[in-house]
Amino acid sequence: MKFTEKLADAVKKNNSLLCVGLDTDINSLPENLGIFEFNKAIINATADFVCAYKPNIAFYERLGSSGLDELKRTRDYIPEDIPVIIDAKRGDIGSTARAYARGLFEYFRFDATTVSPYLGYDSLEPFIEYSDRGIFVLCRTTNAGAADFQSLACQTEEGLLPLYRVVAAKVNSWNTLGNLGLVVGATYPEELKTIRQDYPDIPLLIPGVGAQGGDLTSVIANGVDAGRQRTIINSSRQILYASRDKDFAAAAGQAAQDLRDRINGFLDAM
Amino acid sequence: MKFTEKLADAVKKNNSLLCVGLDTDINSLPENLGIFEFNKAIINATADFVCAYKPNIAFYERLGSSGLDELKRTRDYIPEDIPVIIDAKRGDIGSTARAYARGLFEYFRFDATTVSPYLGYDSLEPFIEYSDRGIFVLCRTTNAGAADFQSLACQTEEGLLPLYRVVAAKVNSWNTLGNLGLVVGATYPEELKTIRQDYPDIPLLIPGVGAQGGDLTSVIANGVDAGRQRTIINSSRQILYASRDKDFAAAAGQAAQDLRDRINGFLDAM
Repeated sequence: MKFTEKLADAVKKNNSLLCVGLDTDINSLPENLGIFEFNKAIINATADFVCAYKPNIAFYERLGSSGLDELKRTRDYIPEDIPVIIDAKRGDIGSTARAYARGLFEYFRFDATTVSPYLGYDSLEPFIEYSDRGIFVLCRTTNAGAADFQSLACQTEEGLLPLYRVVAAKVNSWNTLGNLGLVVGATYPEELKTIRQDYPDIPLLIPGVGAQGGDLTSVIANGVDAGRQRTIINSSRQILYASRDKDFAAAAGQAAQDLRDRINGFLDAM
Repeated sequence: MKFTEKLADAVKKNNSLLCVGLDTDINSLPENLGIFEFNKAIINATADFVCAYKPNIAFYERLGSSGLDELKRTRDYIPEDIPVIIDAKRGDIGSTARAYARGLFEYFRFDATTVSPYLGYDSLEPFIEYSDRGIFVLCRTTNAGAADFQSLACQTEEGLLPLYRVVAAKVNSWNTLGNLGLVVGATYPEELKTIRQDYPDIPLLIPGVGAQGGDLTSVIANGVDAGRQRTIINSSRQILYASRDKDFAAAAGQAAQDLRDRINGFLDAM
């Protein structure tokens, strides 16, 4: 099954475009809980309200091998019908990219990953070859420093375009297997609008609502695809740490349900 | 001790600008050897001929948690006076970059890392804050696809410049603590020459000699710094797999010594 099909099924089943980011910070957990135990409770509480999960590997890798064990256990615990996107932002030359792809897609069995475009096509090819997995290429990121390079005006055959648009155009041209998507941050609504207008059907992974301040209304107005099944709106901290107390799981479930319903409310009103 | 000082000391002690890349591929090892056992033999055989080691984390991560254990054991086995550069090419928003930096600099105790520039300054800041570590930012990579984005002509105050030169200029401007360097591939000698002319003293990590086909003479002629202590010439497969038989360690030691001596021969002739 292709990634876009698996995603569409999960969107439909849970009536949700919400992705919960499992950016589990060992220093932010209720007393005595390990990362996997925390994630397990979060997954149990939110699995009916999401179209995907997205762990960021940095928070696991930070702990070395034990962290990767917690990540593997987390991945294996997530119900098989919910796609898991690993946020890894890898990018290296072909032979090395192949090792990354094997690790993420074979050892960990992730359904999709984020990758960085700086090294160009041959750095993405080993990922793209997995035709049943999704590859989300960084386009316009949520952070302030994104403008340092992503906004640079670049010479192209169509005239001057900001780098993030050149990246989007290249990725679109490379998408012959239909397994590529883009990462566009919720914090830059105009850029999101431009990308969605240029590529109405490409899967978009949209981080930055919640703690990072992206506005949900404008994300939906500017970012959603016509089929309403290829727009993944990620929230991490707002869900994971909805409560810092013993009731964290119930609070996370409630926060996920609320956010899903707010998204659907905005969609209904469109 | 600053990274540049530790590097300079290792360059002087071993009279070497050679870095051995520990890109240890589990499928390429002599029978029955684990990754750490292989690396240990390689390190024993080459430690007198190098200024640094550079494991690429992809080859370890590919194996999940057990791979990271092999990486940790490898790092801990390397003599303390030889800097270890982890080739990780990480790049993420600030809070996540902080988790990566902690993992690489605190858990693993690497002396330096490679990072990707696409997310801009705030994605590098959590690394830069470790003033005693080195941060090598990808500038011009060795692969064919590098041209897809790194060669794009970008508008700047100094007129049109290729993206990799904009990256170099930004990195140079951010180098207030003196712990930044650039990755420039041996396979693009003209670009290497340009970068070295623009930044005569910045540390350069130069992959791509050997298996990737970069020409050693032109690397040295175009890339070496005036002090001959901030130019790190990396070779991986040419050293690790100098022999595929039982004599692999001796062959690697000989290959490292030969390459170091060839580098020094070219330097003497300049």
